[in-house]
This record gives sequence, structure tokens and C-alpha cells, in this order.
Amino acid sequence: MAIVLGSNQYGKAETRLVRFVRDSPRHQITDLNVTTALRGDFSAAYLDGDQSAVLPTDTQKNSAYVWAKTHAVDPIEEYGLSLARHFVEDVEPVEAARIEIEQFGWTRVVAQDGEHDHTWIRSGQEVRTAAVTVEAGGEHVVQGLKDLVVLKSTGSAFKDFLTDEYTTLRPTDDRVMATSLVARWRVSGDRLEGIDWNAMYVGVRAVMLERFANLHSLALQQTLWHMGRAAIEAYPQIAEVRLKAPNKHHFLVDFSAFDLENDGEVFHADDRPYGLIEATVERDDGPPSGDAWRFSAGLA
Amino acid sequence: MAIVLGSNQYGKAETRLVRFVRDSPRHQITDLNVTTALRGDFSAAYLDGDQSAVLPTDTQKNSAYVWAKTHAVDPIEEYGLSLARHFVEDVEPVEAARIEIEQFGWTRVVAQDGEHDHTWIRSGQEVRTAAVTVEAGGEHVVQGLKDLVVLKSTGSAFKDFLTDEYTTLRPTDDRVMATSLVARWRVSGDRLEGIDWNAMYVGVRAVMLERFANLHSLALQQTLWHMGRAAIEAYPQIAEVRLKAPNKHHFLVDFSAFDLENDGEVFHADDRPYGLIEATVERDDGPPSGDAWRFSAGLA
Amino acid sequence: MAIVLGSNQYGKAETRLVRFVRDSPRHQITDLNVTTALRGDFSAAYLDGDQSAVLPTDTQKNSAYVWAKTHAVDPIEEYGLSLARHFVEDVEPVEAARIEIEQFGWTRVVAQDGEHDHTWIRSGQEVRTAAVTVEAGGEHVVQGLKDLVVLKSTGSAFKDFLTDEYTTLRPTDDRVMATSLVARWRVSGDRLEGIDWNAMYVGVRAVMLERFANLHSLALQQTLWHMGRAAIEAYPQIAEVRLKAPNKHHFLVDFSAFDLENDGEVFHADDRPYGLIEATVERDDGPPSGDAWRFSAGLA
Amino acid sequence: MAIVLGSNQYGKAETRLVRFVRDSPRHQITDLNVTTALRGDFSAAYLDGDQSAVLPTDTQKNSAYVWAKTHAVDPIEEYGLSLARHFVEDVEPVEAARIEIEQFGWTRVVAQDGEHDHTWIRSGQEVRTAAVTVEAGGEHVVQGLKDLVVLKSTGSAFKDFLTDEYTTLRPTDDRVMATSLVARWRVSGDRLEGIDWNAMYVGVRAVMLERFANLHSLALQQTLWHMGRAAIEAYPQIAEVRLKAPNKHHFLVDFSAFDLENDGEVFHADDRPYGLIEATVERDDGPPSGDAWRFSAGLA
Repeated sequence: MAIVLGSNQYGKAETRLVRFVRDSPRHQITDLNVTTALRGDFSAAYLDGDQSAVLPTDTQKNSAYVWAKTHAVDPIEEYGLSLARHFVEDVEPVEAARIEIEQFGWTRVVAQDGEHDHTWIRSGQEVRTAAVTVEAGGEHVVQGLKDLVVLKSTGSAFKDFLTDEYTTLRPTDDRVMATSLVARWRVSGDRLEGIDWNAMYVGVRAVMLERFANLHSLALQQTLWHMGRAAIEAYPQIAEVRLKAPNKHHFLVDFSAFDLENDGEVFHADDRPYGLIEATVERDDGPPSGDAWRFSAGLA
Repeated sequence: MAIVLGSNQYGKAETRLVRFVRDSPRHQITDLNVTTALRGDFSAAYLDGDQSAVLPTDTQKNSAYVWAKTHAVDPIEEYGLSLARHFVEDVEPVEAARIEIEQFGWTRVVAQDGEHDHTWIRSGQEVRTAAVTVEAGGEHVVQGLKDLVVLKSTGSAFKDFLTDEYTTLRPTDDRVMATSLVARWRVSGDRLEGIDWNAMYVGVRAVMLERFANLHSLALQQTLWHMGRAAIEAYPQIAEVRLKAPNKHHFLVDFSAFDLENDGEVFHADDRPYGLIEATVERDDGPPSGDAWRFSAGLA
Repeated sequence: MAIVLGSNQYGKAETRLVRFVRDSPRHQITDLNVTTALRGDFSAAYLDGDQSAVLPTDTQKNSAYVWAKTHAVDPIEEYGLSLARHFVEDVEPVEAARIEIEQFGWTRVVAQDGEHDHTWIRSGQEVRTAAVTVEAGGEHVVQGLKDLVVLKSTGSAFKDFLTDEYTTLRPTDDRVMATSLVARWRVSGDRLEGIDWNAMYVGVRAVMLERFANLHSLALQQTLWHMGRAAIEAYPQIAEVRLKAPNKHHFLVDFSAFDLENDGEVFHADDRPYGLIEATVERDDGPPSGDAWRFSAGLA
Repeated sequence: MAIVLGSNQYGKAETRLVRFVRDSPRHQITDLNVTTALRGDFSAAYLDGDQSAVLPTDTQKNSAYVWAKTHAVDPIEEYGLSLARHFVEDVEPVEAARIEIEQFGWTRVVAQDGEHDHTWIRSGQEVRTAAVTVEAGGEHVVQGLKDLVVLKSTGSAFKDFLTDEYTTLRPTDDRVMATSLVARWRVSGDRLEGIDWNAMYVGVRAVMLERFANLHSLALQQTLWHMGRAAIEAYPQIAEVRLKAPNKHHFLVDFSAFDLENDGEVFHADDRPYGLIEATVERDDGPPSGDAWRFSAGLA
């Protein structure tokens, strides 16, 4: 028996980087949280404390900042690919790089003269995400979103489920369905060519929301399946979609003690526990994922 | 010397209440976090554990739910006033009531057929707040907002400040100014009559954002003063405005080691520490505040 | 009618400062979160953007760091008094200063050789707090703690309470009582002389915990009263104690559908809503509080 | 091309369950956050909304509560194994179950009479974790901890690292090293037999802390390797250890402008960005991990 080093990576998590474009009076803002992680043969650092092959995480941070000056940060997927390729191509011991990015949305303030040139408010809780992996076997971009909180007040049922001796839940034909969606979709290899990432983001988000809204749902599972399917149907480049959806329970408040009826009007929004559905929807002839999903580094 | 009971209140914090109106296929949603607090002579509960004058916090929660069925919850200020008056008028030992409400925004999903009838996404981090106090001396409504994150990429300076031996900050003519604004404005007594609360909320928010955007700022203090002043000028009913603004620092990344210039383009958004400016702007003939600001109960 | 500037303060919030003493191989650690706030006539900054009387918040941060080098940081109350006096005495426009400090606990790692000289683990969620105010009218120290989570599994009842038509709660002779305590106690003026702050902190905490544990509680109100009273009885310097206690509800899980009994054994720990009790216990001949409680700056 | 359902699971996340043992006046407390997830052929739920094979997540919650009544919850690993086996053996469509548990620590209040019988305070931020997987291929327990914040004020260097044109970091012989450790160690198959889980938890934690404290560290990577190695050496049942360690940076405050020296005494504890090291240490003849690490369900 021997004890050996298994898979590992290291990097700089959560570099909070804001990039402005100020070429004209109408400025542009891109607000990012960037995490970089490098892979390769770093065993000497672990086994002997030998750092001669280790590019400091501080340098990775500097590189992220410099790249934001010398390369476009919008779309974030291109920025991530460029930065990842730099680490793999220019830093000798690095065999693979993973760049994770969160993009926070901003909306221009609208005053009497219309949209303001250089003032914004944070728009929404929703975060656009990207996870770029550049490795010997190829390149992968996982585009996505998280914290997209969506709710429908009807058009959702849950009934005819399996029961056992511990089941007390009553079936329902009409309930509130709400979730805080995490969705990620992967594009790999030569399908990365020529993608308009901003358009894909808007497009996938739109078809997912349409399905959530318009599908009469018999279960959150069914809704997720149709959301993932719609994304893959809309974009042939997408190899797979991964979805993680907490079922944020809204419980009808019991008014029976007060001689009142509650016709689906007053709910308690509960915190914990919550149902949690996790699913993958795949194109059966898509390229393999390689290490695209390995080690989600610093960002939840 | 004696030890005596000083000021006190008790209540139920953070009842998460969602109210739908389903009278037509186009549903309405109001999503609230409600905190109630009661004041009066509850000394027997403290000194002797005698609960005979104590309406349970569980009952306060039930009352908040029932009121959401039997009274309009929109605008939240009217709902709060009604619920507060109920406690003061109908529950004998209660001398004053304070209702704090957070309202979370939702926006209809837009699909190909336009705005959806019963599906929404959470809009923004910004929270609308209300703190209603009904007491012997009168009634007060403190309307407000929090978590309104706003940023301008130019039009802000900080220079000609006081220095001492511990000062290392360099003056600047052009910086990023960003804050996560907490603003609260008070209306008291007979000025409460006939207010269109939703219009006031929209109006105060608009004039504050206009001032933030368009005032060339020499300091966050100056910006706050003008924001508060604009609100009072726009609404004669408002007696005072209280503002709390963290200066969310954006530091220019130093590129001097890389033979690059940073012309206000790449910033590090820092977490801590942060400047914090707190100020009150008042109408000098406004009605007094009574206990309107006493004990901010459960909500930050 | 005129619009005027009301009360205001500004400062630097949440300077995260760690101080080591390394005079011997056995190091000491003090881990602080320091917030400074200054008061005075800063109206020119608000009205005209004139910063000539404004010491930058960045300088306040530098001063907090320098003081940590040149003065003892332990006990935090002495450090806060020294820093506050510096601002009031040495910076001309400053009329009053408020220093808020959170102290995070660390415990030495114990290895085979006993306590380690220079390695610690964070101990507990509990945070020791201090809020020091130095103003023309005198000096105040509010010592305290927060996030002290305490629970008793018996010895607590809630019954014989007031009921109305919205009451559904059942009385109980035996319940779980749990809270996340915030307690603050004020010492003012010449009673500040010669206090052993670390001993007072340990002592107040001990008598409060003893009362929580050993008092058969008829209500959280009663428990708080006795906790505050015990602190004042133990320390004649303390003028008042303020307590804020969320009632962290533990609900007995209903096993009636499963032919099982739940004899106070299995509980659901709920998140929201929660009861919230806020109370002050005072010495009736204590010195007045002045602005000791005004504007709790950056720290919850 | 077809679109197909890939890997998936569903369950109830974060059931907050507190179990008391009250057989004698000296009560016992076990405070848990339990997440259950089930796997199997649930494709009908996704594709057709057919719930006939779906045991509701509400039932999973009920089962977790009932098991806490009818089975010991301490150690959590045995409780998790029992609950997981129940789902796999008793619920027909279930092919695999994963139970994730967080255990929060409590310490008895010590009053003048010694340890209190039924009153506790929450001890520490550190959380003990378990992830139990029962599947056709076998059983796995991943024991672990998270949020163990540990710091050493000397005995750590970082130098002789790789540099490139973006490197500005200076090497150091003596720095503060701090992390908030996440450590998980896997035991699989027949090596699960007869383990004293509580002793293993205490033992692994102790050897890891000893290594962190006593190893003169040339890099966090080296420290992690030795921590993982020590755990595997101490317990032959452990097949692998996975470690995730943010490098919580402590920056020496620059006093050069103030004519002061900072001999490793005053540091700024920064929030973001942070280094992040992730590594696996393995026994080369250990049993395979199967799905033991697949889908970390509801708990971070």
C-alpha cells in the first residue's frame, strides 16, 4: 500500500473585477467575479513543498486584471477562453485551466432625459455564469445562470404519487410552484466556433422561462425536463443541460379556525426544508464532457 | 438604588407572507416579510412571568395572515396601518404597535404572447420597506427602500479634504462612486391622509436616483444631502429623510508593473472596509417623530 | 419652511484587523472588526461638497491600524477609548467619536505537547462587542456580546397567556427554549475608571448564562429580565442592560399519523418567523446615556 | 439525434432536526441538518409527469423524523446508513439513496454546580458532516468537517515559486497561514464494519490539526498533503481524503508612511479574492468510490 496524490487544482477565487469602457460619454460596465484554477503536475509542491512549478495565485489574479485591460471582457465566455488558453499555452507546467466567471447585471438609470450615460443600478439577483475549461482533450464552455427565482401561481399540480406508511402529503391539482433555478449548458470542441454567446444566453433563458410559464406542470421534474429539452432543441451546439432546482415551498395558510376560506390566496413562503431536483438533459450524440464539470472551484 | 424595567417591545419577526389576487386569469402577487411588535405595560410578564396580558407572538402571526385575506395588502402602508390599529384598538393591554414590512418585487415573465398571467421572476435586490407606528401620540409611516445598489463611473470627485499625519489617501477628480442605499422617509399625523403610497414610493425613488446620477458629486455626503432634499421638495407630506450609504469602494488596479495604463477602466470592487455615511435631512416645521424610529425590530 | 441637515455621522466600517503579540515563542492573537464614526459640524460637506473639515475614512482606517501597533488592543474597550479620544482631541472639527468593535474568539490548538504556541482555531460563533462613545458630555462604553446561541430542553413553559379570536396556540408546561442572544451593557462617565473589562465580560456572560439555565422560565421575557438584573446586581458600574432575543422556535414533530409518541424528543428547528423580545433593564440612579446608543454604525 | 434524460436525483434538502434524549435528568442533544436524495428510474416523472414511482420529498422528510425517533441519531453515520438502506430496500423504485448530514455542536453550560443537565450553548462554527451512499455496487460513508477555521502566526513560508511577466508577489519566509478547512474522508464496502465513527471523527480531526500546527509549511499544498496523509496512516479503513482549503489572506499593513515598523504584528484580514487549493490524497489499493461523490445535494 502507498499513499498517493490524486486529482488536484489550485487557483485564485473570487477576484472582483469591474471593467468600464469609456471611449465615449456613454460608458459601458461589465461586473465580474472571476475564479481561476490550474491543473498539471504540481506534485512536488504537495510532496516536498517545492514551489518551482507553481505560478502564485496572486499572479493569476494579476493576469485576470491585465486580460480585462487587453482583451474584451464581453462576452465573458471569450474572455474566459482567452485567459485559460494563456495559462495553458504560456505557463509551462500548466496542463489545463478552468476559469469560472459570475457576471452581475446592471441597468442604466432612467432619468427625465432617458437612459443615463454613466449611472446604473444593479438589476436582479440573477447571475450569469460561465465555466471555461481548456485541457489537452479540448475546450469546453459551460454557460449558465443561477439565482433566477421564478414562480407561478397556478398551472401546477402534484398528485398520483407513490405513497408508503410515512406519507401524509395530500395530492393537489393546483399549487404554487417556485424555484431558484441553477441551469448550466455545455458546448464543447469545435462546436464552440462562431457562437454568439450573448445571444445564446438570452435565447436559452427565454425558452426555459417560456417552458416554465406555459407548461401545465405535473411535477417540477417534468418542468425541468422540458426546459432542458427546449434549450437543446433551440441550440444544436449544446451537448447537455444540467439543472438544479430547489422546490421553494409555499404552504396555503390554514384559515379553518377563523371561519375564512383560503382560495389559493394567502401562503406562507417557507425556508427549509425544500425539495431539491437535480437532472441532466443530454443530446445522445454530443461530444464527451472531459473534465468540463470537474471541481467547481470557488463559486457556489 | 432599584433595578427597573425600561423600554421594551415584543412581537413576531419575519412572517413570510405571499398574497395572490386570483379574481381574473391575470393574477396579482404581493410578496411580504412582516414583523409585528407590541408595546404597553407588559411588566408582569418580565417581573413575574405572568402572561395574562401577553398576546402570543403566534397570534400576531395569525393576525398578519388573516389581515392579508380580509384587507388589501397593496399598498403595504395601508395594510400596516390597518393591522397596527387593530392591535392598539382591539387588544386591551396594547398601547402602541409597530409593523415593519419588506416587500419583494416580482416582474411578469414575458413570453411570445406578452406578459404572462401567472408567472413572475424576482426583480432586483432592492427591497421596498415600511415601518408603521400607531401610538397614543399619533401615527407614523416610515416608507423606504434598501439594497438599492447604484454606481456611477464618472462625475464624482474627492479632494481638498482634511489631512493629518495618518493620511495617505490621494485626492482624485474622477472616481467610481457606488453605494447600496438605505433610505427611509417619514410621514406623520394628519399628513398621512390621502397619500398615494405607491406613487410616493416611485416618485421619491426617481428623484433620488436623478440626483445621484446628475449631481456632479464632491463627496457622498453632498450627494445624500441633495437626494434627501429632493425628496422633501417633491413631497410636502415628508417630514424627514434618513439615509445610510456605504461607500462601496472601487479601487483602480495598478498596472504600472506591466507597462500598461489604467485610464479608469479596470477596478477591484472591494468588500471591506467601506466608508459609511449616515445622515438625516429634515423639514424644519415637520411634526415630531415620537416613537417612529424606536426599536427597528426584526429587519435589518 | 426650510430643509435642514439633521443628525449625521460618517466613518469607516469593518476594518478587519488582526494583531499578534510575538514577544515570545508563545504568540497572542486579537482578531477585530473595527468601525469608526465621527460627529461634528460637517454641514459644509453636505451642503456645498466642501471637504476641508472632513478627515477621510481612509485616514480613520489607517489610524485604527496604527493604534493597534502603538497601543494595546486587549481589552478592546481601552483600545476603543484611546482611539476615540484621539479623534476628538487631535482632529479639530471632530466633536464626538464612536468606535464599534467586534472581537472574534480563537482557541489554541491542543496537540500532544499541550497548547500550541502559534496555532489557533476559531472558537464559537459568539462575538464580543464594544461600542465606545466619546463626546462633550462624557464617555460611554457599551460592552456586549451577540450570536450567543443558547438552548434548554426543559425548564420552560408558556401558558395562561392572553387570547383573542385569532389565537390558536396551545399552552405548554414544557417546551424547548432557544435564542441567539444579543446583550449590551452600558458603563458611563466616572464609573469607567479602573474597570477590568475582560473580567467584566466573563462575569456578565456567566451570570446571564446561569440565569438562563437555572431559572424555571414562564416566558422569555421573564428570563431576560432576570438575566439583565443579575448583570446589574453583579456590577455596580453598569447603568443599564439592553437585550434582544429571538425566540428560535423548536416545534415538536407530530407523529400521530405513525402510531408513535413524541415525548419531547424530536423537534423541527424552524427558521422564520420567530418571536422577538427586546428589553432594557436599568439602574434607576444610573448616569444618563447621552448619545451612547445613537447610530449603531456598521455592525449589526 | 435524440434528447435523453441523463443522471438525476431528487430529495428533500435541509430538514432541521433536533433530537433529545431525556431518559434521565441529564439530557442529550443532537442537532442535525438532514438532506435525502433518491436515485432510480424516475424517467416517467420527467418525460410524462407520471408520479406513480415518485415517493414525495415530504415523505422523505417524515421518514427522516421517524428514523430519529426509532433509531439512534448518534453517530450520524449509522443513522444515515439506516435511513439510506430503508429507502433502497423498502421503496421499490429506489435504486440508490444518498443521505447528507450536517451536525452542529453544542457544549453544556457550566454554572457553579458544574455542567448543566439541560442547557447548552452552540460550540463553534465547525460543522461535522456525513454523506452516506447506498447503491447496488455497495455502501460508502464520507465523513468530514467544514468551516474549521484555523490559523498559524508563524511557521509558514512561500518562496521560490514560478514567476512570469505578471508576477509581482514578493517571496516570504514567514507569513500568517489561515484557512477555513473542508475535509472529507471516504470509507467504502466491507471496511465500514465495526467503525467507531465518533472516535474516527475525533481522531482524524486531531491528526489534521497536529499536522497543520507542527509542519513547517512551504505551501498550503504541502500542508494539505500531510494532513490527508496523516489521516490515511491513522485509519486503514480510509480510502481517500478530499481537502478544499481557501487561503484566507492576511496582509501585513504597510506602516512605512508613519515611521513605524510592522514586525508581523498588524495584519489586514482580507475577504476576497482568496487562494483556493483542492486536493485528493488516496490509498492506492483502496476500494473504488462508485457514486459516493456524485451530486453533493443540498448542503454546501
